[in-house]
Amino acid sequence: MLDLNQPHHRINILTGEKVLVSPHRNNRPWQGKVEEIANDDRPQYDPTCYLCPTNKRADGTINPDYKDTYVFTNDFSAILENTEEGEYNNVDLLQATAERGICKVITFSPRHDLTLPEMDVPSILKVIDLWQNEFEELSKKDWIKYIQIFENKGAIMGCSNPHPHGQIWSQSSLPNEILIETARQKEYFAKNSVSLLKAYLDLELSLKERIIIDNAHFVALVPYWATWPFETIVISKRHIQNITEFTPDEKEDLAKTLQELTIRYDNIFSTSFPYSAGMHQAPVNDGIHPEWHWHMHFYPPLLRSASVKKFMVGYEMLGGPQRDITPETAAEIIKKQSTIHYKQA
Amino acid sequence: MLDLNQPHHRINILTGEKVLVSPHRNNRPWQGKVEEIANDDRPQYDPTCYLCPTNKRADGTINPDYKDTYVFTNDFSAILENTEEGEYNNVDLLQATAERGICKVITFSPRHDLTLPEMDVPSILKVIDLWQNEFEELSKKDWIKYIQIFENKGAIMGCSNPHPHGQIWSQSSLPNEILIETARQKEYFAKNSVSLLKAYLDLELSLKERIIIDNAHFVALVPYWATWPFETIVISKRHIQNITEFTPDEKEDLAKTLQELTIRYDNIFSTSFPYSAGMHQAPVNDGIHPEWHWHMHFYPPLLRSASVKKFMVGYEMLGGPQRDITPETAAEIIKKQSTIHYKQA
Ligand SMILES: O=P(O)(O)O[C@H]1O[C@H](CO)[C@@H](O)[C@H](O)[C@H]1O
Ligand SMILES: O=P(O)(O)O[C@H]1O[C@H](CO)[C@@H](O)[C@H](O)[C@H]1O
Repeated sequence: MLDLNQPHHRINILTGEKVLVSPHRNNRPWQGKVEEIANDDRPQYDPTCYLCPTNKRADGTINPDYKDTYVFTNDFSAILENTEEGEYNNVDLLQATAERGICKVITFSPRHDLTLPEMDVPSILKVIDLWQNEFEELSKKDWIKYIQIFENKGAIMGCSNPHPHGQIWSQSSLPNEILIETARQKEYFAKNSVSLLKAYLDLELSLKERIIIDNAHFVALVPYWATWPFETIVISKRHIQNITEFTPDEKEDLAKTLQELTIRYDNIFSTSFPYSAGMHQAPVNDGIHPEWHWHMHFYPPLLRSASVKKFMVGYEMLGGPQRDITPETAAEIIKKQSTIHYKQA
Repeated sequence: MLDLNQPHHRINILTGEKVLVSPHRNNRPWQGKVEEIANDDRPQYDPTCYLCPTNKRADGTINPDYKDTYVFTNDFSAILENTEEGEYNNVDLLQATAERGICKVITFSPRHDLTLPEMDVPSILKVIDLWQNEFEELSKKDWIKYIQIFENKGAIMGCSNPHPHGQIWSQSSLPNEILIETARQKEYFAKNSVSLLKAYLDLELSLKERIIIDNAHFVALVPYWATWPFETIVISKRHIQNITEFTPDEKEDLAKTLQELTIRYDNIFSTSFPYSAGMHQAPVNDGIHPEWHWHMHFYPPLLRSASVKKFMVGYEMLGGPQRDITPETAAEIIKKQSTIHYKQA
């Protein structure tokens, strides 16, 4: 037995890591840093924005007058396609390996003033189409082993341009998080012949404590081991390895799920809710990965208001993550939000 | 062979994790969030500060008129001493365990206007004495398995009060980072009969590329796998398990090392340099840990200026950490700083 109102830690089944939960700590007064609230009043077109249609980018390219989405290689890519192979190892203490990759930027809409929660389902579907295409094209290059699709939303999340956009980093080796999620899913699948996330989803659907959205093809919920205050995970009901396997029906449901989840987020503090979000999918060109189950993480930093975030510092950096409100309380708060965006209400 | 000017990843030998290095990316223009620069002009005594001598704290306690350091139990502790044991496990998918602990706050000085780099060596020695005492006292409680000594410096690092202070969280289980560093050090020690960090230190001292400070008892250097832009690690030359083993000479050298390192940090951008820093030490009341080698991590977020930090978001949260300048460039920058604090110069 365990009293969940007392301090405890929970295990993240995808990584094996602990998160410390301090339910009693929620009434801590905050005397620290308050964030500026981003100006949400933007024009539909901004002549100085390098993502708006027809504008010029850093490398001199003129963006086309695109009508839905637009994708291009990041002008300041962290990894590059033409990097040569190489390795350095000094008695196993200094170890480095060349990393090859392609970094792309994807605009979600020509409209500078929108964000995912303000876009309609057909427009979000266009973004999902693009994600599918890009995943398929990138995985044709046999040196690419992993493709990370993600979005940084809000200045507080290091996003340098409010024009709605995401990124895709694809690379020649598997990143840390994928190595560990692969190992954990593999172990579970070998033992139980069912994917870890399918088993987890079934359990959560029977308990109904942390479920936010449950439609024909997707579930959005606050994971039992949520680290960020309002962290959620979107899991496909079908056990599939990557986004290219989604049927038209599934894509429609995914668009609806992303729209509803981000509307609920914006409504919590009546603000454009910042987050980093991204899909975790099976590695590519790396043998078969029947253990892998597609999912998407949302890591939002806000804690108490539009201007007070959770700091993952100090103990968190040196020991491990810590949270104040319980995942169940967070789920309650997200669940009670309207599915109409506050700007429309 | 590997060209370190091309994108590559390096391995953190203490955790086994990769960090992606993008040396070419340093000239990326920054159009994103700029941080407010903290007002550094503080009075020696602030009547509204709950850490200053003789002031009242949240729980009504009046602080004594202390002259050096002062320690008390955190009024908003994340873990509590009186938590009862308990466990919950639902088919290994939902796992939680009660966590018992004690969170303390330590003021470094009665002076509200100082920080470590502005304190003299005898005053820093008083802080080290207190760390030693606290570690010794806390480890007498046999249910405490790990003691995390750390400091969050600067509003940008979630520090809610500029009065110089640190924290100590002690707890009934080992946090993630300690579990992994223990496993890695154990493996190396079993194989080589020398501690991982002793072997690493000897190699770095022979290469001299990343060394910042090298005195009789301590070395401060930019680790080969540094994640944060100006990350450093302080390693004791003697292979010891925890702070209680330091001799008076070693403590004196540690005080000098901390003072010089933080002065160099402040001088980089002529600002009070924010960071989270903390010691990693052997677990306590947990059998013997001959593999453990005392060290202290400094994780500072600033990248380009006093107001532009590195954001560990998006790819970093979903894949793994990424850095722009190389650890060697960072070491060069820290090395060329004066050891006289910019406010004194
Ligand atoms: O206890 P404090 O200083 O108010 O809080 C700060 O340090 C803690 C330990 O690193 C973190 O959990 C908090 O997020 C941070 O704001
Ligand atoms: O490429 P951007 O959007 O300028 O940069 C942002 O996202 C990247 C990927 O998550 C991070 O490495 C950067 O720290 C962040 O500022």
